[in-house]
This record gives sequence, C-alpha cells and structure tokens, in this order.
Amino acid sequence: MDIITLTQIQAALPKLDLLPALEQGFVAYSAGKAVVPPVGELILQDPPGDVHIKYGYLPHDSYYVVKIASSFPHNTRLNLPPNNGMMQLFRQQTGELCALLLDEGYLTEVRTALAGAIAAKYLAPATVECIGIVGTGIQARFQLQALREVTTCRQVRVWGRDAQRVAQYQDEMEQEGFTFLPTSTLEKLCATCNLIVTTTTASAPLLQRAHIRQGTHITAMGADMANKQELDPAILAAADLVVADSLEQCRERGEIAHALRQHLLTPDAVVELGQVIAGTVAGRTSADQITIADLTGVAVQDIQIAKAVYEALSEKPLE
Amino acid sequence: MDIITLTQIQAALPKLDLLPALEQGFVAYSAGKAVVPPVGELILQDPPGDVHIKYGYLPHDSYYVVKIASSFPHNTRLNLPPNNGMMQLFRQQTGELCALLLDEGYLTEVRTALAGAIAAKYLAPATVECIGIVGTGIQARFQLQALREVTTCRQVRVWGRDAQRVAQYQDEMEQEGFTFLPTSTLEKLCATCNLIVTTTTASAPLLQRAHIRQGTHITAMGADMANKQELDPAILAAADLVVADSLEQCRERGEIAHALRQHLLTPDAVVELGQVIAGTVAGRTSADQITIADLTGVAVQDIQIAKAVYEALSEKPLE
Repeated sequence: MDIITLTQIQAALPKLDLLPALEQGFVAYSAGKAVVPPVGELILQDPPGDVHIKYGYLPHDSYYVVKIASSFPHNTRLNLPPNNGMMQLFRQQTGELCALLLDEGYLTEVRTALAGAIAAKYLAPATVECIGIVGTGIQARFQLQALREVTTCRQVRVWGRDAQRVAQYQDEMEQEGFTFLPTSTLEKLCATCNLIVTTTTASAPLLQRAHIRQGTHITAMGADMANKQELDPAILAAADLVVADSLEQCRERGEIAHALRQHLLTPDAVVELGQVIAGTVAGRTSADQITIADLTGVAVQDIQIAKAVYEALSEKPLE
Repeated sequence: MDIITLTQIQAALPKLDLLPALEQGFVAYSAGKAVVPPVGELILQDPPGDVHIKYGYLPHDSYYVVKIASSFPHNTRLNLPPNNGMMQLFRQQTGELCALLLDEGYLTEVRTALAGAIAAKYLAPATVECIGIVGTGIQARFQLQALREVTTCRQVRVWGRDAQRVAQYQDEMEQEGFTFLPTSTLEKLCATCNLIVTTTTASAPLLQRAHIRQGTHITAMGADMANKQELDPAILAAADLVVADSLEQCRERGEIAHALRQHLLTPDAVVELGQVIAGTVAGRTSADQITIADLTGVAVQDIQIAKAVYEALSEKPLE
C-alpha cells in the first residue's frame, strides 16, 4: 500500500494531462457506465463540520475510489485549513487497498476547476472577450487557472464583497499572466464578460436575470448544497441550454434545484455535461445563446483524478 | 497520522475490556444518541465483490470513524483472504485524520463476535446446558470464543454441511478449551442446546420452528443482507422476545426483515439490544422463554472498537 503525500501529488500534477481523463469520466457517468452511489454525509454540530464520502468506479477499470472530504469552518481559528480530504484507491479485482492519497483536499480543488474548464470548452462562446470571476476564494483562483487550457483570453474582471480580497486576488492572478479590468459592480461584470464563473458560498442569488446579455456562458460552481444559490433562477429559465454535471445531484442541490422547485425549469430540459462532451447532445450552437453549467461535483471526477495521479506516481519508485 | 497494523492491533486486543465499550455503543445507538447514517454500498460484478462503508460518531466524543470493508469471495482462488477492511479515525473537532487501523477486517470479526456475546449475556438462559454453533467458518470460531466472557459452559455441539470442516473446527476449538458432543442433525443440536448461534451464509432457513424448544436463545448473525436467511420466520413469530441490533437495519435485512415481509412479526414487537442493555426494556424474564437476537452489524460497534484500540495504542509510542 502506497501512501502519497500532498507534496508528491503537487509535483506530479503539472506533468499530467487531466482534461481528457475527466472528460472520459463525465462521458461514462452520463452514459450510465459509472457506478456512483449516493454521497455519504456526516454532519457535526459542535463545532460545525460536514464530511462527505464520495465513491464509485468505472466497470472494467483497475480501481474503485473512496474519497473522504471534510469542511470545518472554525478550523481557521486554530490556524488549520478548513477543508481537508483524502482519496483511497482499491483494486477492483480483489478489494485490496493500493494507495492512500493524502491530498488534504487539493485534488478536489483541481478536479472541480477542471470541470469548470471542460464546461467552458464546450459551452463558452468561440471568442471570449473577457472572463468574469465572481468570488475571491480558493476556487476563484483554481477556476481561472484551469481556464488557460481552454481559452486564450487572459483579460479578467473579478467581483467580490471585500475590496482587500479583490486586490489580493488580482495581484496573485497577475503573477499567473492575467490582466485585470476594473470592476465596480456585478452588473458591469455581466455587461462586459461573456464567460462568467461564480465561485461563492452565497445563499441568495448574486447574478440577476436583467444583468445577463445574450451570448454569455455562466459556470455556477459555488452552490453545491441545497441551501446555496448564486443565480437568479430566471436566468436558467431564459437560458438556451442548461447543463448539469449530474442531473440526479442537481435535482437536489445547486442552481437547477432552485429553478426546478420554482417551476421555472423542468428536468427534461436539463442535459448532462457528459452528453455534451460525447456529442450525443449539442452544446452551444450559436454565438448569441445563453448557456449555463451547474456543477455540484461528482465522484467520477475523484475516481479519474485519483487514478491518473496514482498511475503517474507508481510508474517510478515513490520518493 | 498513525498507521496501525494488524499485528499491533492483535497485540493490543487481549489487554482491552471491549465488552463495556460495545455495550455503551449499543445503548447510545438505541437512545438515539449515535449519529449513524445509512451504510454505503458498492457492488462489483466481475469478479463479484461488495464493499460496505459504515461511519458515524457519538456526539461529544473525540472521533468520528469511517470503516471500509470488502468481501471478494473469488480472492481464495488467488490465495488472498476474501474479507478485508480498515477503520479510520478522524478528530471530531477538526476533521483531521488521526489514525488508519489496517486491521484487514479483523476488528469487524471481533466486534461482531462481541455483539453475540452481549446478546447471550442479556438473553441466554441463566444455565447454558450446551452451546450450539451452526456453521464452521470464521465467525463460528470468533462467536464461540467470545462467549467465554459471558457463560461458563464449555460444552458445544457444532453443525456444518462439510464433515471435514466440522472436524477441523472441533480440533481448533478443543485447543481453546471447549469440549464437543457429537452432532448428527440440526434437529439434534436444537433439541440439546439452549444457546444457539447461527453463523452461516444460508439464503434459506436452516433452523425450523418445530426444532426449537422453549427456553432457547438464538443469536442469528449470518444473515446481514436482504437475500440471506438462517431461521424459519415462524421461530420469530413464536419467540417471546425478538431483539435487533438496529431495528432500522433489520427492517431491510436479516431474519426480522423476512418475518416482517411475511407479516409474522410487526416492527413494534421488536426491541433493540441497546434498550435491553440499558434496562429500559426487559430481556429474558423466565427460563422457558424463546429469545432471538438478530444481528446485522451497526457502525456504532466499529466506532467503539476503533476508538478503544487506538486509545490503548496511542498511550505509548507505536512500535
């Protein structure tokens, strides 16, 4: 059994071409070829914390994967990171534990951002004028970095509630080769960006229907729980295409769940990202469409990234 | 993070008094004080295998525990053990991983046998004439050994389909201080034993209603899945007391589920082991009652044994 640390994982990641692995995962999932049971959840009260167990496998593959991830917001008071996690690979033939990836939640950040990049690849307009990032947290960083793989646009507007965090975000992302235009309001961001990624923990809509121009793609990835929400559900009603990573999960959580509950959307109007990647459903078909990708995170992403990292690291002796 | 091997675990176990820890776990569970979400299950087809994820915690305790256990019956063809498993302890305050108990499924065997011993402690007749063991597998061994803690009886009858396996079982258990009386049929076993433990993977009833005398206690622990069954449901209908480790689980799997489905039992006639231990429900109240304990395995057992082992081992430096 191999124990793989975050340092080893971070060293391996730049050499890996993860986008195709993730795409294959979404395709298998939407074709009903991935075995992904419902997410296990453990809620703690004092201090508040939640633990998610995501697990599954692709048939005829080498491994099954179990991810245990936690979020304890009060950890910051103890100078500990709030999010944590690890992935475990087991041999599909025998159940033996092959590897423990002690990634401390890092691989979840990466695979979440890659899903955003894949959504943009298939749904964003051909010419991205300006990228709009809503939020200034960890995923605001990962999402923007991942977009480099799928668009040449490096012009960004970012919006956040806290001016200092906005400034810090801009500084960091400028180091990564992005240039920033000033953003005063979300309205301004929506009026000038045609690829928007929302990455906040908001529990009430930030983006309003009136703000959204034709020809915009929005990836909403902040709302992964039933009580979270970033988009006015009227945006989903107005969209030409609404794409879920998992329709099953999006019925219960995220933007689609809110729109379904308000009868602004029906489940049969929603397609899955894996269908769009496979080409069984068309993605964006014209420049002036509004498209939405609602990402809640699927275990198949964890399966694919864990496998890719482990296989890359196990080819040569571990340090 | 500590990694604890099976060798270390086996060295620690004899020094531990686990029965009270397990009893406290059952009491907390039946009082609604344990947080134990539904069991996660992953089924594999080729080769066949199943993986169970059991997890939970007791509020105001130090840890939460996740157990991942697997059963791959074809492993024996590769000279690998069919059952495997490990337990993971996380800090309830922060979500940090404290320890990985690489017990290879051993702690599951131990905690399952301890539940059988607890059932016998509260439900078996005061004078055990002879212990009847149905089955000759791993749990047939663990269950009998665990009964030493709760009865002075060392006289045993064992029944199995395979005479060679029966002989081997007797040889091994004689080394442990038990004496065996010859068993030709299950009928004979039931006619002479008043503490019976069924430990098989049968999918159709082995013990029939007509075999069971008044004054018998039966612990049925083999049927942990919906399709398994060891007891004629009429035995449950005739019993004075039917005890589940978890009524919620026993509604879906095990002997009680079969009896409920055939309307030979109603859920409100079933009590939980934790209620009997706590004394909020009476256990056996007379020598001639028939009592049944149906054990399907509850995560609270894993929580309690993992915690006890880890705390014992972390008091001194790990080898």
